[in-house]
Amino acid sequence: MRERLLAWLLTAEGFVSGAEISQKLDISRGAVWKHIQALRREGFVITGSTRRGYRILSVPDILLPGVVFPVLTGKFGRPYYFHQTLSSTSDLVRQLAHAGAPQGTVVAAEEQTSGRGRRGRSWYSPRGGLWFSLLLRPHVSPAQSQTLPLFVSLTVAKGIERLLGITLDLKWPNDILLGGRKTGGVLVELGAEAEQVHYAVAGIGINVNVASFPPELQEATSLRIYTGRRVDRARLLAAILHSIETGYPRWCREGFAPFREAYKARLSFLGKHITARTAGGEVFNGIAADVDAGGRLLLSSAGGQRWLCGGDVKAREGVRI
Amino acid sequence: MRERLLAWLLTAEGFVSGAEISQKLDISRGAVWKHIQALRREGFVITGSTRRGYRILSVPDILLPGVVFPVLTGKFGRPYYFHQTLSSTSDLVRQLAHAGAPQGTVVAAEEQTSGRGRRGRSWYSPRGGLWFSLLLRPHVSPAQSQTLPLFVSLTVAKGIERLLGITLDLKWPNDILLGGRKTGGVLVELGAEAEQVHYAVAGIGINVNVASFPPELQEATSLRIYTGRRVDRARLLAAILHSIETGYPRWCREGFAPFREAYKARLSFLGKHITARTAGGEVFNGIAADVDAGGRLLLSSAGGQRWLCGGDVKAREGVRI
Repeated sequence: MRERLLAWLLTAEGFVSGAEISQKLDISRGAVWKHIQALRREGFVITGSTRRGYRILSVPDILLPGVVFPVLTGKFGRPYYFHQTLSSTSDLVRQLAHAGAPQGTVVAAEEQTSGRGRRGRSWYSPRGGLWFSLLLRPHVSPAQSQTLPLFVSLTVAKGIERLLGITLDLKWPNDILLGGRKTGGVLVELGAEAEQVHYAVAGIGINVNVASFPPELQEATSLRIYTGRRVDRARLLAAILHSIETGYPRWCREGFAPFREAYKARLSFLGKHITARTAGGEVFNGIAADVDAGGRLLLSSAGGQRWLCGGDVKAREGVRI
Repeated sequence: MRERLLAWLLTAEGFVSGAEISQKLDISRGAVWKHIQALRREGFVITGSTRRGYRILSVPDILLPGVVFPVLTGKFGRPYYFHQTLSSTSDLVRQLAHAGAPQGTVVAAEEQTSGRGRRGRSWYSPRGGLWFSLLLRPHVSPAQSQTLPLFVSLTVAKGIERLLGITLDLKWPNDILLGGRKTGGVLVELGAEAEQVHYAVAGIGINVNVASFPPELQEATSLRIYTGRRVDRARLLAAILHSIETGYPRWCREGFAPFREAYKARLSFLGKHITARTAGGEVFNGIAADVDAGGRLLLSSAGGQRWLCGGDVKAREGVRI
């Protein structure tokens, strides 16, 4: 009921009278007043007068369903679950996936206490960021899903770019950078049989309005630090979901190939000397020469060429191109 | 305490005196008596006399930890969890995996209420069968794990063969047959990132002492129906775990290639006309000509050759070689 009232107030032009609300929602004028008070306690600034009715002046910077729903443009984000604090949004999406939740389900949290990065690393997820996970159910094999993190990181970057008018870089395989500093990341976790993916959980973390980082994360930045302004996180979430949803059917049909050039165009390390460390702990040096349609990074050195399926890359120290 | 007492009685030669038990376990003679009574209620037949002590005459056909532990020969099966009824042993192993359970963890149940087969199908799991799931943590990519179900079904078959002295057939990709009738199956589910498997749950179901099947499962059989005798399920579980554990390091290092010939030797359909239905619903007819090191089935027909990554195969009706 409160969500319907909120959606109505958010989309209305000007004031909405209490009488009209009372009639349309079939509740008493007193009940309308109670809902308005509850919304005010959640951070909505609502002006009201007995003659003219109610009008929302400002919306709190909290990813409440009532704030997110009105700005969603597609099917991704429905259903939408919001929690103030979660250990990890991906854990909840995974549980929902096993309970039969549909593709497009999104869980967001104001903060995560055990946010995860790739390969079991932790992800700093304080208030002010955008931490959410999206449930996908692509009809692909686990091998085909290998490029899903690259596709998601590209479309996340494009969604942010379109809303804010800035240009982002990508770091292979799935980090998002601004001016060479980490601003976001994507972690895709699969639930699968050997031959068939049952679901993929795309965990997406963007340092949006995070004002500062602990000393060990000095290489990180946020959209706010970089652009100098606060970003409306609900609109950012909607823009990112729209961007993923737009490209997703094509990725399911054709894989990473149609997205490869756009991905490579944002790859800041391409053509530069890098050091790569594989999951097995091997270290390779070389020039990041290419990314193929399978999402693999080509490392080229005097000793030959090597295709990497995964691992961590960084600029080689002391070397400039 | 009861498990230590049980392990002792099971491994002892002849009688163990109540005084000795009381002393070694540091409990009263009355407490020893209570534990013996509890074991009798669980189905153990224990003879006892004040002079000679206690001796186990027969062990109940229940997969209790106390029955399973003494027959385990390796690391797989530790830790071991047993439940009378579970929705699905794989669901519990998956939860344990997320909580950090080690490789080799096994969950068994007397019956499953929502046992799963491949591709979301149900698996009939009444009392009398062997229904368990094994947690593996191989350092492989999702693509490399594609042959894990084939490796597991082969080693499960070999474990059964060695204990019972019978010969089993396999049906690609991961069914176990006796005389052309389904006797068991393997379902491998992955938890993974795009480039790295976090864990694999091998769900294994064997129709051991199941005496009859519902009308819709008339193509199924059990070890008991086929051999005419009841099989000790705890020893069967131990034999299967031993067989998987023995081959597993090699599969992790070298993949399916070293197991391919043994797998093909048990493939009843090889060289015969079959009909295959892919996950996408396409139907192909041809001769099952080969299985490659990637676990793919080669279908050969007048129209050409086709490699299948997954799907269901059956003998083509009315065609005999």
